[in-house]
Amino acid sequence: MIAELIAVGTELLLGNIANTDAQMISEKLSALGITVHHHTVVGDNPQRLAQALETARTRADIIITTGGLGPTYDDLTKQTICKTFGRELELHEDILEEIRTWFQTKLGREMPENNVQQALLPVGCTVFDNPVGTAPGCAFEENGVHVLMLPGPPFECRYMFEHRASQYLERLTDGVIVSHEIKIFGMGESSVEEALREPMEHLTNPTLAPYAKLNECMVRATAKAETREAAEALLSPLVSQVCETLGDVVYGVDVESLEAVASDLLRKQNLTLSAAESCTGGLIAKRITDLPGASAIFRGGVVSYTNAVKAHVLGVPEELLEQYGAVSEPVARSMAECCRKLCGSDLAVSVTGVAGPDQDDRGNEVGTVYIALASEEGTICKKLSCGKGRGRDRVRTAAASHVFDLLRRHLSGLPL
Amino acid sequence: MIAELIAVGTELLLGNIANTDAQMISEKLSALGITVHHHTVVGDNPQRLAQALETARTRADIIITTGGLGPTYDDLTKQTICKTFGRELELHEDILEEIRTWFQTKLGREMPENNVQQALLPVGCTVFDNPVGTAPGCAFEENGVHVLMLPGPPFECRYMFEHRASQYLERLTDGVIVSHEIKIFGMGESSVEEALREPMEHLTNPTLAPYAKLNECMVRATAKAETREAAEALLSPLVSQVCETLGDVVYGVDVESLEAVASDLLRKQNLTLSAAESCTGGLIAKRITDLPGASAIFRGGVVSYTNAVKAHVLGVPEELLEQYGAVSEPVARSMAECCRKLCGSDLAVSVTGVAGPDQDDRGNEVGTVYIALASEEGTICKKLSCGKGRGRDRVRTAAASHVFDLLRRHLSGLPL
Repeated sequence: MIAELIAVGTELLLGNIANTDAQMISEKLSALGITVHHHTVVGDNPQRLAQALETARTRADIIITTGGLGPTYDDLTKQTICKTFGRELELHEDILEEIRTWFQTKLGREMPENNVQQALLPVGCTVFDNPVGTAPGCAFEENGVHVLMLPGPPFECRYMFEHRASQYLERLTDGVIVSHEIKIFGMGESSVEEALREPMEHLTNPTLAPYAKLNECMVRATAKAETREAAEALLSPLVSQVCETLGDVVYGVDVESLEAVASDLLRKQNLTLSAAESCTGGLIAKRITDLPGASAIFRGGVVSYTNAVKAHVLGVPEELLEQYGAVSEPVARSMAECCRKLCGSDLAVSVTGVAGPDQDDRGNEVGTVYIALASEEGTICKKLSCGKGRGRDRVRTAAASHVFDLLRRHLSGLPL
Repeated sequence: MIAELIAVGTELLLGNIANTDAQMISEKLSALGITVHHHTVVGDNPQRLAQALETARTRADIIITTGGLGPTYDDLTKQTICKTFGRELELHEDILEEIRTWFQTKLGREMPENNVQQALLPVGCTVFDNPVGTAPGCAFEENGVHVLMLPGPPFECRYMFEHRASQYLERLTDGVIVSHEIKIFGMGESSVEEALREPMEHLTNPTLAPYAKLNECMVRATAKAETREAAEALLSPLVSQVCETLGDVVYGVDVESLEAVASDLLRKQNLTLSAAESCTGGLIAKRITDLPGASAIFRGGVVSYTNAVKAHVLGVPEELLEQYGAVSEPVARSMAECCRKLCGSDLAVSVTGVAGPDQDDRGNEVGTVYIALASEEGTICKKLSCGKGRGRDRVRTAAASHVFDLLRRHLSGLPL
């Protein structure tokens, strides 16, 4: 089946935001075995949206729109789609009630009157109720073409696709498509591609596709078969082969993130962690506490952004700070050891480095980062070069990922 | 003038990457006073690219393609454009020489033979030589339609636009577009729109458009005029009017973020901050240290994710924790006061709440959050309801934003 994505929003045409909804949906459609031939973006303009819909219905089996479902006068996606496909809009009292309740309970205020139009949906559609926002989505079929409408804000769009649209789409495809994601840290996309070129080129079902992500990469193995079991049987040897070829840079299959893997290892080994952060400034704690249930394994930590906090809160000896500077191996080691004692955790990690934009007062280049891990058995420390000129955000993200990878390797008994 | 962007690349349709080239180019076109009506993405498929070009030439004055200029068999942008617009390709010896030199000096190897096709360019075109990669771009005019071809890799695309395409386009346009962003926290998009409906509906130049962002919203005022000065003169009274209408929920015009505004206020008043975080788990520290130069105003803080860390690192009295529970006003106040002393900062903020997914052991609902701000003059505390069922991430983000808004209001002498 062929799908076409139409994003609606003048903010996209003004370059205010990138069309990340299209990327997210395309990736998920590919995993469902649905081919995408076109992405189109139009502004909040009913004529141009209508033209885009007319064109799309001649060449696609599935049209997915994103955006234009809000309560304001320029949100015209539903109206334009209904006009193009000859449907009426009708008020869904239950959806209106949900929106009213959302305002009362989540936002603590009355629903403004113009939000009523969010409860107007095409006659006979499948409603995608939206528990994470006010704009419901919906879908209907007209002359063999399925039209799905999703909200534009990326968080809502992702939730609605994963929990509403994907179930709708699964019923349209025959056979099942199963995929597994092999997550990799510490090897670049082109090296992964080179290592897997031979199997990748000759595969048709299952297939392998590498994806570059920020600071890491991923290989998706996908198989199509009559049943889930048959698809799994096709995938199982391939996934094993990829894991074996790539070795311990593979940090997991179908896992959420490096921090999720490290957290699971801590949980299984009944260990607790704390973190002393300088250049990452809370990012490690933030990433680990993004995960529900973090309090079982994470005790807390200190964001020792200044030397005074390193010395007086963590207890790093001032001599070390003076002699070696804050960005140094001795300070990284001391930060981890002090944090472990202070927070009473089994393990503690630390990071100190230069996130930029400028080098530090001792001439350490942007991207120079020391990470350490303290445990009962002692302390290990690594010096990283997280890339000069890659921007503060990239340096900090890379440093935090390296900490989680160090933790994973330590807890799994892998070479550090 | 109307422009249309056509991106060529199957990797975009697979969701491998987002079309950030389109965002970058759109933003720059808007600043040049060129209006974008469509973005289109097609795969490495000459038929669908030809169709997209045929459609675009009927509705745009300027067509800008990105991607498909590489040396491999699936790079077909130039060939397809030439076929559609009836031009021949010709070999540019000087460009071929540049590509050969690039391989020798930058990559240290001989140019593979298939790179010769990168030196084939449409007869009579303006060549955009590429000093940051191998694929040159180019532009030509045919029957009043300008066609520009740029390479796909974002770094090369940006360079080529800024240093080659923009000069070509500047000659084609008259007038400039200027816009200002009015940033709002504490008022929803629909309420903002209701408040501004009257002026918004009757405006044609300048215009107003509201945008919803995560936990906040923004109104963009845009004007078109002959000169930047004339555009600013159109905008200035409108921006003032919007700010006056909306009141102190406007946290800034053309500012980056709430945390940037709060940081600037701290910097101007020569004050330092620290943070004691429970449910936000490092997010406040992370957001403030995302900004370069944070060390001048942010001393650090404690991520007191567990009661033990609240008591033994921060120094919150255990009686308070026992009597009121961790999610309570007395504990929030104590966290901020202890953190201020511990880190030696002028101000300290604290957050304690229930991020979810479950309510806490004292029956506090998900989204119940206490935030506090301690200063020399005393401590203020607010109880928030950050929305049950909106997901951990939303609760945490909202709580952190409220802390920055409290700080902004305190430092600006606004009602809290």
